[in-house]
Amino acid sequence: MSEAGGPFDPRANAPSETGGGPATATSRPGEFEIIERYLAPLASDPGAAGLSDDAAVITAEPGTDLVVTKDALAADVHFFADDPPGSIASKVLRANLSDLAAKGATPAGYLMALALPSDWTADWLEAFVAGLADDQDRYGITLLGGDTLKASGGLTISITAFGRLPAGSIVRRSGAKPGDRVFVTGTIGDAALGLALRFEPGKASAWGLDDAMAAHLADRYLWPQPRTTAAAAVRRFASAALDVSDGLIGDLAHMASSSGVAARIGAADVPLSPAVAQASRIDPAAFEMALTGGDDFEILASVPEQSCDGFRDALTAIGVPVTEIGSIEAGEGIVVVGRDGQPMTLAGTSFSHF
Amino acid sequence: MSEAGGPFDPRANAPSETGGGPATATSRPGEFEIIERYLAPLASDPGAAGLSDDAAVITAEPGTDLVVTKDALAADVHFFADDPPGSIASKVLRANLSDLAAKGATPAGYLMALALPSDWTADWLEAFVAGLADDQDRYGITLLGGDTLKASGGLTISITAFGRLPAGSIVRRSGAKPGDRVFVTGTIGDAALGLALRFEPGKASAWGLDDAMAAHLADRYLWPQPRTTAAAAVRRFASAALDVSDGLIGDLAHMASSSGVAARIGAADVPLSPAVAQASRIDPAAFEMALTGGDDFEILASVPEQSCDGFRDALTAIGVPVTEIGSIEAGEGIVVVGRDGQPMTLAGTSFSHF
Repeated sequence: MSEAGGPFDPRANAPSETGGGPATATSRPGEFEIIERYLAPLASDPGAAGLSDDAAVITAEPGTDLVVTKDALAADVHFFADDPPGSIASKVLRANLSDLAAKGATPAGYLMALALPSDWTADWLEAFVAGLADDQDRYGITLLGGDTLKASGGLTISITAFGRLPAGSIVRRSGAKPGDRVFVTGTIGDAALGLALRFEPGKASAWGLDDAMAAHLADRYLWPQPRTTAAAAVRRFASAALDVSDGLIGDLAHMASSSGVAARIGAADVPLSPAVAQASRIDPAAFEMALTGGDDFEILASVPEQSCDGFRDALTAIGVPVTEIGSIEAGEGIVVVGRDGQPMTLAGTSFSHF
Repeated sequence: MSEAGGPFDPRANAPSETGGGPATATSRPGEFEIIERYLAPLASDPGAAGLSDDAAVITAEPGTDLVVTKDALAADVHFFADDPPGSIASKVLRANLSDLAAKGATPAGYLMALALPSDWTADWLEAFVAGLADDQDRYGITLLGGDTLKASGGLTISITAFGRLPAGSIVRRSGAKPGDRVFVTGTIGDAALGLALRFEPGKASAWGLDDAMAAHLADRYLWPQPRTTAAAAVRRFASAALDVSDGLIGDLAHMASSSGVAARIGAADVPLSPAVAQASRIDPAAFEMALTGGDDFEILASVPEQSCDGFRDALTAIGVPVTEIGSIEAGEGIVVVGRDGQPMTLAGTSFSHF
């Protein structure tokens, strides 16, 4: 864990500031104390050296590859600054774990750069770290290192996560072949509708949702559930896979274009929770939002026909719901066949925040 | 390279915004285009899959360990937003390479999360990427993956860098033993005084610096020179090492406390450039700033007495200046013997930006 920030720090060295010494003007912990008190307990791997050094060691395991991914989230862009701190911690960590799972990798550890805004509090940090600690237990990973710094705007968190898999067995987006079947785990659209409710709570009654349904959607937005247990089945059976983070349709389009193929799915086959199904019955825009909204953290996979039974059985055996939603074809582009049997026209099929 | 941001994006999904589709309202490239046009050309390693996937593969090399480090920098905290884009790119990348070098590792690759502020321009991004490309050539590394997102404040860049070394050979901060000698590469204080000049250009004449000296200091602040070529010598001869990023005195204190030893150095032995030597002759505060200021990115190492000649010879042979500045002793704490032979009292010996 590096203590970067001080030495570079234009402000810390600015004559107009009070200087670069440890902040004693407030009761908040200084950077070294943040590392020692809050973060070092997360770093039980010997390679992390208790965060007492500038780098961690990851030992090579013969016959395995390391898979590495990096997702960063920023306040007011990817989450609300007043979301529960534990949810923010889980969201950024699990976004990375979801990527690993879709590639077929078993999580091994992570590094984190934590850029704290000027109004952070010790209570907030404590709750954030507690969220990380819970997830470390849940997913069997530990913190390997990172950096803490002062954000120039709101909270920004960057995580680099590592997983392992047998050498050469990573599942790419680009392996889909005509004739493969398309599967997705879990249900689609819950997080997107949960986010929509966050902006417009009144939609819950407009969509005819009861309290439990609305709570389900909010929960799925705040607490992604990456499919880490599905990694082995993905590795064994899938020809291509990615996690649904940009929206089902957008991510299917990514898979198709990376693979140089076309894809066709049936909208009626897309698995929906009771809440999303209810909203979609009343409001076609809600259904479209579910298909394109993102933040699902389910796994979208193409599977060769002869492996479909194996894939389904392997996931069912470990309690991961999986649904066949379409097929891969020669050509390019994707077609979503609507519930009326006609191709759907969707307003936005992938998102960009620029 | 993940396209995170869109799907999560509260703003992109906010009813009050124009929506989450690719930004066509401006002439700036969208997120996918940033990745494809600007970043993918940096990713020549096959494991990066041309940034077309959510994760990269790092192949295990039997008998080697991976060393991994993460340093993040934020505008107005670690650099000035109007610094040359290439300098910002180099600063964050080289800060990470400096950590690897001090641990004895050879750089292998990096991931980057790039959080762009709302006022970024294509020209800026082009210059930033050109800086990364130059450094990739210089240091023999490539981009493996990462994330691009909208910053909620100013520009923030988080890099995770990987290096390799023979298994078990990482050089920690914690290995210094009484009797070891203390060495530092290059010269100390240039970047700190360069930063001070950035705030108060008038100091150049107050310190009696000619234009070349002032330019040298500014250059050392903008363009750190990590000692990547010294990694093998550090690994072979040093008992402990770290890079000088928090200031020579502060980092020596880190080494001493991690190792459970004391350290004594002679201020007069600390290697200074002509510019820092000149400023220090006129202004004792400049000398103190040099010893405590940081951002040097030189390597501070403890070396057992029998290995000192080997260490010096190995570095000299590759053109890396190295100077013996003191010794490790039993006990705790550090003593800096001033040029008058008396222990110096230094106002701030390490920095924190909180």
